[in-house]
Amino acid sequence: MRVLILGGDGYLGWPTAMHFANEGFEVYAIDNLSKRKIESEHGVEPLNIIKPFNERVKAWNLNQKNKIKHYISDLLNYKVLCEILEEFNPEVIIHYAEQPSAPYSMASREKAVFTQHNNVIGNLNLLFAMKKLCPDAHLIKLGTMGEYGTPNLDIEEGWLNIEHNGRKDRVLYPKKPGSFYHLSKVHDSANIEFACRIWGLKCTDLNQGFVYGISTKEIDLDYENLATSFHYDSIFGTVINRFISQLACNLEMSVYGKGTQKRAYLNLIDTINCVKISTKNPPQKGEFRVFNQFTEFSSLNEMANKIKLYADKNNIKAKIKHMNNPRIEQEDHYYNPKNTSLISLGLKPVVFDNKEIEKIYRVVKKNINRINLDSLEPNIKWKS
Amino acid sequence: MRVLILGGDGYLGWPTAMHFANEGFEVYAIDNLSKRKIESEHGVEPLNIIKPFNERVKAWNLNQKNKIKHYISDLLNYKVLCEILEEFNPEVIIHYAEQPSAPYSMASREKAVFTQHNNVIGNLNLLFAMKKLCPDAHLIKLGTMGEYGTPNLDIEEGWLNIEHNGRKDRVLYPKKPGSFYHLSKVHDSANIEFACRIWGLKCTDLNQGFVYGISTKEIDLDYENLATSFHYDSIFGTVINRFISQLACNLEMSVYGKGTQKRAYLNLIDTINCVKISTKNPPQKGEFRVFNQFTEFSSLNEMANKIKLYADKNNIKAKIKHMNNPRIEQEDHYYNPKNTSLISLGLKPVVFDNKEIEKIYRVVKKNINRINLDSLEPNIKWKS
Repeated sequence: MRVLILGGDGYLGWPTAMHFANEGFEVYAIDNLSKRKIESEHGVEPLNIIKPFNERVKAWNLNQKNKIKHYISDLLNYKVLCEILEEFNPEVIIHYAEQPSAPYSMASREKAVFTQHNNVIGNLNLLFAMKKLCPDAHLIKLGTMGEYGTPNLDIEEGWLNIEHNGRKDRVLYPKKPGSFYHLSKVHDSANIEFACRIWGLKCTDLNQGFVYGISTKEIDLDYENLATSFHYDSIFGTVINRFISQLACNLEMSVYGKGTQKRAYLNLIDTINCVKISTKNPPQKGEFRVFNQFTEFSSLNEMANKIKLYADKNNIKAKIKHMNNPRIEQEDHYYNPKNTSLISLGLKPVVFDNKEIEKIYRVVKKNINRINLDSLEPNIKWKS
Repeated sequence: MRVLILGGDGYLGWPTAMHFANEGFEVYAIDNLSKRKIESEHGVEPLNIIKPFNERVKAWNLNQKNKIKHYISDLLNYKVLCEILEEFNPEVIIHYAEQPSAPYSMASREKAVFTQHNNVIGNLNLLFAMKKLCPDAHLIKLGTMGEYGTPNLDIEEGWLNIEHNGRKDRVLYPKKPGSFYHLSKVHDSANIEFACRIWGLKCTDLNQGFVYGISTKEIDLDYENLATSFHYDSIFGTVINRFISQLACNLEMSVYGKGTQKRAYLNLIDTINCVKISTKNPPQKGEFRVFNQFTEFSSLNEMANKIKLYADKNNIKAKIKHMNNPRIEQEDHYYNPKNTSLISLGLKPVVFDNKEIEKIYRVVKKNINRINLDSLEPNIKWKS
């Protein structure tokens, strides 16, 4: 099966590309390398030295039976996008190719505009290119659980059956996103739903929780050359990765605000498994299907405490501090998101336990001299 | 009161600017003239020769006590936008400055991208500029009833109280827009709601029905110089204006599909009155308030029949034809949109009756030699 991976140089895209190649899919990975550029704008780097896209693909292809094809291009370049679709004729398109950071999108007008322009117009180009060249391909689009915000209602998977004044309808689940980045994903989902409805495209929109983790079977084949871009900093690092990095640095784990905010999360390995399950179980023509892609949810305090328990057990000094919340978000709220779809299709979740903490902790410890402590500070505020 | 009108050269913006000046507001009208450009791309023109923006402002200022200040600029030019806000320090900003045509947005990828880029990024720039320079100004943003689509539910005004699994919340009304243009307005609303929530901006989002009409008190002072850009064509013309123009040309009124589609509409004079009522009754700081801005709703068949009855009474030959629907939309559907907010604030609706039909009919008849019959054909299809 021909699988096009957009954003194939990223934290999730790269390990997905390797895993899909390993599983016998025909993989074509595309990236515009913009993440590397915006990292350097903020002076942040991933934990590991990450080989250039060309080099890591070369390293993979040198030793592995199933090769990865790759190309450097941008979804904003419609002409090249069309050439890629025409040449490769993908059956599945996995779309990770978006600016992925909420704090980045809140740092300035320029960055909010970059985020919405890059994400929304890139995705719009993709929809038009698919309509023209591969209308039967299955689009798998990465969204985020942050699109929903924290409503005082159970969070269903993308759609909601409602009754109002005695009448019923099935509607897109009402969203309350928390940043211009999250808003860009909401806009994408709305554009995609329309393209499915009008043109008969088919899409699985994956509303993903925070991803944690640093290794997969494929990364571990050759960590030096195949590592993924693990971020611990306050801009691109997700909360669990950041907490464990702080622990490894003998720093207090910094919880924003009261820490009673609840969030959903999943292991990097499960991201890949969810995308694989979606690939193998496509929606109907014209269907806009939404899965909530996470395996656990808890408050930030509970996450930090889990890591502290691991530390206590291993005689590692651990402290938790609460700091002024740089974000504007509800801290006390109801949270009950559903995630039955992927489970019912066969996902066997990795559990966030001491073993998983240990894996990350060890790699961070090994690379401790590369950590830039300044980048852990949340300097971007939602309201100055 | 200082009122900044964005899109002050348009069908609605120009008569709003004159009326507000007439009523003693201090008016500053801005336009990027992009509507004139995209009209010429498609080879369509308004019914009347419309003087250049500079000239119509000059004509107004020559004879009227309360002058209009104007400037040609683009919301995409953030620097100039900031200079305008800094210099004028508006108390109210009326934002009409968006690509306004659904068919235009469906004509090609380039036009869909232009529409979403122009509308979403322009509006995003405005939000950042307001936050920085006039956070207490009241933003009055023109949206459309088409954002809602045709759900099988009563359409409330922007927000919806729902109960789900025994829990309650007030959420943004779920939208199901019917074109990339309508989607751009949905994206705008989501971005604005966030800016109100996070930064404490205040906004009235006006979800407007189809506007019909050609004259206002101010236009009638000097029709030749002050006319507004009435469109009868299939791209920019709204349905009632188009039907009456077809009647005046001895053409069949072309109803798309079965004509059982229901839509909401209002007179041009009521657009201005609604915006004025909103201006005089601002929302609270941080409030994202939504009004449904229409005065009547009916099926396309009922609209066409009303015009036919006028014609029959006046011995004008009238015929209605049904043509293949170029759009993809529900034709048989429930429709019950609410519009109590503006009425309860004092709106006294103009009724769509023979007198109103007559006003439009007469002006079209007078300019009949300017009508380009080809432009009445709906050549843009939602799916080719």
